[in-house]
Amino acid sequence: MMRTPTAHQLDEVFVALADETRRAILARLSAGQARVTEVAAPFPISLNSVSKHIRILERAGLVARRRSGRDHYLSLDARPLTQASDWLQSRQRFWASRVERLQALLDEEDARPGPRAAGGRRS
Amino acid sequence: MMRTPTAHQLDEVFVALADETRRAILARLSAGQARVTEVAAPFPISLNSVSKHIRILERAGLVARRRSGRDHYLSLDARPLTQASDWLQSRQRFWASRVERLQALLDEEDARPGPRAAGGRRS
Repeated sequence: MMRTPTAHQLDEVFVALADETRRAILARLSAGQARVTEVAAPFPISLNSVSKHIRILERAGLVARRRSGRDHYLSLDARPLTQASDWLQSRQRFWASRVERLQALLDEEDARPGPRAAGGRRS
Repeated sequence: MMRTPTAHQLDEVFVALADETRRAILARLSAGQARVTEVAAPFPISLNSVSKHIRILERAGLVARRRSGRDHYLSLDARPLTQASDWLQSRQRFWASRVERLQALLDEEDARPGPRAAGGRRS
């Protein structure tokens, strides 16, 4: 059963997803855990910038950190992603179907014979 | 067929979705087009703040604006939402399945009989 995420959790996950570097970090970690320096290596930005991105991902619960001596290992936690994806899919379907139904009603109205309604184009 | 959104489009849609007020505006517009003042009415924030939220939604292509004299009518365009939802669902499935497969491999490794690996716990 799907657990509905809170508004705050949705905010954090969508913020986390709204950046190409952060999406690339998630893709990297889906291939297995990695040290912070390994995660940072492919990006043409400072380690400090990558660390900031990682903290945003941690705040959203998408990345977990495990310390082993001086090494910090990062891993992907896909659960908040699943929740956000389920939420977005259900909203998208519901909203899109409402908009379509409304459009169909308006088209029907337009197709109906008779005098032009008073609320029509006035220019 | 699903058109893959660009990185920039994904950024804009996820930014747009990362706020409770903006999600509520989308929900309102899925029930039909509305004037800016009508959209703003239920929110305990200034019209100016609501206008800023609307501009972020317009930038993401989620809201369209039609001018009729002095009135501005807003309507929902669900297409970028569908694209982002499809993208997120495909990534979520792919990433989660990689993580699960990896975990299964590690569990298998742990269950295998034999001497403890040299890379094991050292504390």
